[in-house]
Amino acid sequence: MAKKDKKSKKGTGKKSAGKKGAKKGAAKKQSLEPKPVKIGKGAPVSEIAHDFVAMFNARAGDQAIWDKWFSKKLVSIEGFGQQWEGMKAVKAKAEWWNANNTVHSCVCQGPFVGATGFAVRFTADIECKADGKRATVEEIAVYRIHNGKVVEEEFMGQCPEM
Amino acid sequence: MAKKDKKSKKGTGKKSAGKKGAKKGAAKKQSLEPKPVKIGKGAPVSEIAHDFVAMFNARAGDQAIWDKWFSKKLVSIEGFGQQWEGMKAVKAKAEWWNANNTVHSCVCQGPFVGATGFAVRFTADIECKADGKRATVEEIAVYRIHNGKVVEEEFMGQCPEM
Repeated sequence: MAKKDKKSKKGTGKKSAGKKGAKKGAAKKQSLEPKPVKIGKGAPVSEIAHDFVAMFNARAGDQAIWDKWFSKKLVSIEGFGQQWEGMKAVKAKAEWWNANNTVHSCVCQGPFVGATGFAVRFTADIECKADGKRATVEEIAVYRIHNGKVVEEEFMGQCPEM
Repeated sequence: MAKKDKKSKKGTGKKSAGKKGAKKGAAKKQSLEPKPVKIGKGAPVSEIAHDFVAMFNARAGDQAIWDKWFSKKLVSIEGFGQQWEGMKAVKAKAEWWNANNTVHSCVCQGPFVGATGFAVRFTADIECKADGKRATVEEIAVYRIHNGKVVEEEFMGQCPEM
């Protein structure tokens, strides 16, 4: 392992003048000390995370949850590789999806609380209106927070191998 | 909802000349169209995700997994709000943690494959060497990928409420 340590602590110290640089720069210096994760002001992640799960399982509805905890600049990322930018686009996606699928049930398990956001596990019984195909879907949703609002959500799907 | 749509599609089109701007700018324009998620070149997320889980559950060891799939600039984020920047710092954290805890068992469930990375669920039987306290810990780990390497990992803990 020592072989991999190309930069000594001394070298890192010397360069600390440029410490104000981006995370990338800091990573290059490879300081051994941890740094506090910064996500701005506003409600702590744990509060948002627990309220999100409580509201979801109480069927408060997307609009109520969006209004309370989500940024207007929300970026929504789907596992298949596309992202919708801005609440208007995210709502359009949701409306399209709801028009094409019937959710017979959906349980939100969690939260799993992190430093930049939180994750939940969705277990949903979904039916495709077009072909009537019905399946139970397992998904992890990851929510990133800045200044007390969810600014990014990403849906990660369970694979058949599981 | 219409009330919330402050920018018409037409307005968005007019501004499309500046479309090369950062994600933030695009979010401001609130185009309804999704955009492809870009994570550089290299192995697809699904390949890295499945191999990570296979190697972990086969007990290949951290070093083998780091060498194969992780960036030297890895940023490791812990749920309590600290981040370690660079593989040297991440290894130091891991060594400290392993010196203070005994992992009697740890199962990695997943992967849950996303567009920017993947998530797994760890269920571990951990004993604190200092006080002999032993507990089963449930955690979601989220891995972000760029150019075929994991560049960020975040550990999100299960809360007592679950």
